[in-house]
Amino acid sequence: MMLLPWLNIASLHPKVSKTYIIHMDHSQKPDHFSNHESWHQHMVKSLSSACPEDKETFLYSYTHVMHGFSAKLTSCQLAELEKSSAHLTTYEESFGKMFTTHTPRFLGLNHGSGIWPTASYGKDVIIGVIDTGIWPESQSFNEKGMSEVPSRWKGKCENGTAFSPSLCNKKLIGARSFSKGLQAAGINISTEYDFESARDFEGHGTHTSSTAAGNFVYGASHFGYANGVAKGIAPRAHLAMYKVLWSSYTMESAATDVLAGMDQAISDGVDIMSLSLGFNNAPLFKDIIAIASLSAIEKGIVVVCAGGNFGPGAATTHNGAPWIITVGAGTLDRSYLATLELGNGMTFEGTSYFPMNVLITNRHLYYGSNDTQTAGCKYLPRDQVKGKVVLCDDSNLDLNGQMQAAITSGAYAVIFLSESLFLDPEEYSIPGMVLHMRYAKAIKEYVMTGNNTIVKSMRFGLTKTGTGPAPQVAFFSSRGPDPISPSVLKPDILAPGVDVLGAVRPDVPYMEAGKYELATDYALMSGTSMAAPHVAGVAALVKSVHRDWSPAAIQSAMMTTATNTDNTLGTIRDQWNGDMATPLDFGAGHVNPNAAMDPGLVYDMGPQDYIDFLCGLGYTTKQMSTILRTSQWSCENRTDLNYPSFIAYFSNQTTLLSEKQFTRTVRNVGDNASTYRASLKVPPGMILKVEPDTIKFMNKFEEHKFVLSIQVGKHIPKVNYGYLEWIDEHNHIVSSPIVVLKD
Amino acid sequence: MMLLPWLNIASLHPKVSKTYIIHMDHSQKPDHFSNHESWHQHMVKSLSSACPEDKETFLYSYTHVMHGFSAKLTSCQLAELEKSSAHLTTYEESFGKMFTTHTPRFLGLNHGSGIWPTASYGKDVIIGVIDTGIWPESQSFNEKGMSEVPSRWKGKCENGTAFSPSLCNKKLIGARSFSKGLQAAGINISTEYDFESARDFEGHGTHTSSTAAGNFVYGASHFGYANGVAKGIAPRAHLAMYKVLWSSYTMESAATDVLAGMDQAISDGVDIMSLSLGFNNAPLFKDIIAIASLSAIEKGIVVVCAGGNFGPGAATTHNGAPWIITVGAGTLDRSYLATLELGNGMTFEGTSYFPMNVLITNRHLYYGSNDTQTAGCKYLPRDQVKGKVVLCDDSNLDLNGQMQAAITSGAYAVIFLSESLFLDPEEYSIPGMVLHMRYAKAIKEYVMTGNNTIVKSMRFGLTKTGTGPAPQVAFFSSRGPDPISPSVLKPDILAPGVDVLGAVRPDVPYMEAGKYELATDYALMSGTSMAAPHVAGVAALVKSVHRDWSPAAIQSAMMTTATNTDNTLGTIRDQWNGDMATPLDFGAGHVNPNAAMDPGLVYDMGPQDYIDFLCGLGYTTKQMSTILRTSQWSCENRTDLNYPSFIAYFSNQTTLLSEKQFTRTVRNVGDNASTYRASLKVPPGMILKVEPDTIKFMNKFEEHKFVLSIQVGKHIPKVNYGYLEWIDEHNHIVSSPIVVLKD
Repeated sequence: MMLLPWLNIASLHPKVSKTYIIHMDHSQKPDHFSNHESWHQHMVKSLSSACPEDKETFLYSYTHVMHGFSAKLTSCQLAELEKSSAHLTTYEESFGKMFTTHTPRFLGLNHGSGIWPTASYGKDVIIGVIDTGIWPESQSFNEKGMSEVPSRWKGKCENGTAFSPSLCNKKLIGARSFSKGLQAAGINISTEYDFESARDFEGHGTHTSSTAAGNFVYGASHFGYANGVAKGIAPRAHLAMYKVLWSSYTMESAATDVLAGMDQAISDGVDIMSLSLGFNNAPLFKDIIAIASLSAIEKGIVVVCAGGNFGPGAATTHNGAPWIITVGAGTLDRSYLATLELGNGMTFEGTSYFPMNVLITNRHLYYGSNDTQTAGCKYLPRDQVKGKVVLCDDSNLDLNGQMQAAITSGAYAVIFLSESLFLDPEEYSIPGMVLHMRYAKAIKEYVMTGNNTIVKSMRFGLTKTGTGPAPQVAFFSSRGPDPISPSVLKPDILAPGVDVLGAVRPDVPYMEAGKYELATDYALMSGTSMAAPHVAGVAALVKSVHRDWSPAAIQSAMMTTATNTDNTLGTIRDQWNGDMATPLDFGAGHVNPNAAMDPGLVYDMGPQDYIDFLCGLGYTTKQMSTILRTSQWSCENRTDLNYPSFIAYFSNQTTLLSEKQFTRTVRNVGDNASTYRASLKVPPGMILKVEPDTIKFMNKFEEHKFVLSIQVGKHIPKVNYGYLEWIDEHNHIVSSPIVVLKD
Repeated sequence: MMLLPWLNIASLHPKVSKTYIIHMDHSQKPDHFSNHESWHQHMVKSLSSACPEDKETFLYSYTHVMHGFSAKLTSCQLAELEKSSAHLTTYEESFGKMFTTHTPRFLGLNHGSGIWPTASYGKDVIIGVIDTGIWPESQSFNEKGMSEVPSRWKGKCENGTAFSPSLCNKKLIGARSFSKGLQAAGINISTEYDFESARDFEGHGTHTSSTAAGNFVYGASHFGYANGVAKGIAPRAHLAMYKVLWSSYTMESAATDVLAGMDQAISDGVDIMSLSLGFNNAPLFKDIIAIASLSAIEKGIVVVCAGGNFGPGAATTHNGAPWIITVGAGTLDRSYLATLELGNGMTFEGTSYFPMNVLITNRHLYYGSNDTQTAGCKYLPRDQVKGKVVLCDDSNLDLNGQMQAAITSGAYAVIFLSESLFLDPEEYSIPGMVLHMRYAKAIKEYVMTGNNTIVKSMRFGLTKTGTGPAPQVAFFSSRGPDPISPSVLKPDILAPGVDVLGAVRPDVPYMEAGKYELATDYALMSGTSMAAPHVAGVAALVKSVHRDWSPAAIQSAMMTTATNTDNTLGTIRDQWNGDMATPLDFGAGHVNPNAAMDPGLVYDMGPQDYIDFLCGLGYTTKQMSTILRTSQWSCENRTDLNYPSFIAYFSNQTTLLSEKQFTRTVRNVGDNASTYRASLKVPPGMILKVEPDTIKFMNKFEEHKFVLSIQVGKHIPKVNYGYLEWIDEHNHIVSSPIVVLKD
């Protein structure tokens, strides 16, 4: 899977009719309509009087995510509709893309103790995955050891192309697909490009589903890499698939379809929703995922979203509404390697995903040293290259192009010198390894010694675990601050998103190797798409232990217990440059499931908190009612959202000292009376204060307020960060990152 | 590894000097020699007076396995030596071979309950493996979780080529090599063929060692097949390697070296000895493994040996002395598969070990139907075959030859129709599958329909577990009755010996695939060589639970609890013909570790029992003293060896009824008072009786005798079998097979 930025393709289809999502004021529904859907449909039909030439196409009526519907309308029809006093907002159809480019053991999950046994592996929790569909026959979705389908479940498995309800079981309890919006945009779902059903054509939804809640599968691997036991984070949770991402043509998900899928998931009764996709950033009142998520949150459903693959630049996060858990991608402690020994005895280790355990001994090494074309493998002379190991040293050309040149020229194997260290696993059609540029000098010194330079040995197909430092923030992971909601620190949390092994579609070739095509049941994928379902799985585990917790409490538990150090006990680093990363890169840190089960304190939030947050944004009444899907709300004028992290902005100030204050409320969720003391990690150049700095909780569920004040001097750097930790006598450490930015 | 019969190569080297093993009467050692070794060396040196021209070469002095030594002697020297009154026996050097052609889960071993936790995974038990050496860097021999080296251990790790003592650890606690005998036979150990040290050149000893006591290794696989957690049967037992098998030239182990290795293992203090090798069958007084094993048994060491790969013919067992646990090979419940769909939609499943997950779609199918040469793939026309899938239907030609023809002709893939279903894993250089002959008709009907027949799809690289029926007796596993000791039922027990995944030498190519060579850390091997270390591992677990049990008690515990049914609950079948197998094929049945821990009763034997057994064989005094390594013994004239199985021979009798009686003693090793009742499974045509048929044990360790009588009629079949089961009220079933043969 490649890291593609998504495109808004709507503009490429200038049709007379366009698809719109129409947000209505539900309170104005005339009583004689038995339900809102009949009202919506009647309203669309009645447009024919004003625009008699125009054909109307009704798509979906939405119940939970908003009160409204989607339809394909002409400008005449739309104008007529917007005259209605019940009309609130119109959104033009938009198109989103998935966020894709080993895991439970790395997160400390084990059978002996911790959240897995305590949460019964996520038993009875239902995770709804909004994605490309699912391959129901994958071993990850077998029902061995699963409990019965909860009686509260209202979802179902729909019939469709290559899909029948009988494919569902106690693991996969729901499977539906939503494509009306895409079809209204003129895209036919042909069998060549996709299945018109919940069956996964692409493999993406199968992968994310297996990560969140795949059952235990022994002996899974990516062509021998990463092999072992494949399992989801919540292996006993139930799964429901809502297919809204389609592989037809280039566009992938229509906003109308995503809304419909989320609406259905809420109606069916999922506990957790996981979205590994996104649209172009937009204000919250235009962000359909944000709006639909808020409606889910109001019903107690946790919503977890991929933060996007638009890093390493700043302010690139997506899905950053404060009620969404926004997930960044981290690396794992596994490396996929090849080793190289040159004729002079020097040895090197590089990245490789070549799918066979090839051992190469005593082969001639070709390097087109005199010519940047050949040295960089833009072009390779077949008569000189065939049967040899080729060295390519152009770090500017994409590795894929160099690989193609090596294949065409009949090279036996290829060594790339590169800084990005990234060639997609499926591109390794001949034995290839990517070596870091820092070895370039040593290698070139050897190859320049003459015509008879050789590779003494190369070995492919090695997996190394426990490689450090890990996790690192993946170079592609979107970074904060959030461009839409800068007052909330985003991303919230980091989870594994690089080389994640998950189930895929097994019946089509995954890659080529030599003259053969290869298929696999499990494959490595990268992206925040892979990180989000990890957090969805952890949320399911926490939910399983604490059935009564709000989505915000579950979010807080995961955030305040996340770890900001790596396996070398240093601060988590940035894969991009190797430097220490900051909470703008990793949020509260890397998710830590066992600790999330028992956070000590939570920063809770409810619908009114989010209303107050929105009140502070200066939106119009119409914009507010669009987001809130009601005309009834009141701003209580509380200043601070009770968020479990802090971000403060200071302008280039003129006074010596400038101060900001944050008010927060913490609730004791530990079983004991506890005394928490504040511990501050203060960045240089500022003063942090907590008032009070000691809080005594006599009972469970007791709440206390505190105020964090940040005083900064005139000459602080642009980016500063510290931590507030509340520490009690029962080993609880309730940690919140504090980011201070200067304009 | 191929199933090669071993050869006695000694006769190929007609030299003036030959190597002999000389067995001495230790009681005649003159007192002025401080130890037997100095006496032996002096004796060889003093031969120069009688044979002044001849050079003497002293090899080993043996302490435990016998009182004696080995030396290279001329006929003059030998004649002189044999004049000594202390001389007992002379053996000419002989040469043996290894018995090679997935596992703990299949045996029911698990962390939660049973013998693994009870035995602490074999903690503190030392398994000595007599084999080709060991690859100490294999992850199977890491010391993670191992206890300290027992203080009683006297072994060491010897320096040598590519081996230093620092390579040993708490897992691998001893490593020695023995090659004097091989070198005396004129075979130089060149670095091209082997390492002159305990380092494994071949991979065989690394494999058997990892099976017996390999540590836990995650993600081991044979090129993606059988992947999962690799582990030995006794993962916390210590290992000591005695290298006696060498890959130089064609011969592999010299009797002098095997004796030296076993002698050293006894001296070092191993608890269990595992031998996956054998020599040509010989009477017990000429069988050096039998003699050395008896000396080990006297010291409480359990000796487990591979029974040989000379099946499926009858009377082909090796290493069948009654004090040796003789192990046959069973299949596992895993299959390595490829699937095939023809152009007409018919689908088939066959065996394949091709090391890549290849998916082939819509390829032309070639079948040389008009010509037995091409149809049988003796010869394939390149112009017609290149790029196509080839069908080969000659079940007579070896599959290897057909594979070579397919490769040479440029075939894209190959389908073999065969009855034996066997092509060594390392021979799959292009995608190939072996289909059973029973599908021949259906496939040929399709390929004969015209020139445009195609393979719609083929998929390679599939592992299927839980395939039944399993275990089956491997077609190659040697069968009883034992040609040397027919009065004891052999083999004793069955253990996994087909497609066993174990550690191998990782630094050399294991196989070719297309134009590349592949290496692996773990590979599948087959043979009774692989079965023996499984039983050695189980013996270590039983020993760990019952430190005071004799080797015979441990053998009895494993045999009487072995299962004679497969995973479909039918009698274990014979892989050769699919028919039900008999105790002549599988002995007491398939080893069942958890049950072996608590057998209820044991049939114990001690040195005097074996002496009495030998007394019954009519050996000369000299032959007896050779086996017993002493001139002091007495025959107590007991008739029956207290063996936990029964075999009776009846001649083609004239009288109507004929009877045989067996006397046995059982000892209660359960913790409780118990009443055992005899239950007999009687084959047709005979009467079995047990007297008494109820035995009350009031205390632990109490012993009782019983008599089993077998009365047969005139017209019984040639082979008959039944079972005697002693069943108590605590769920103990103490089962012994009864085989009745008619001449």
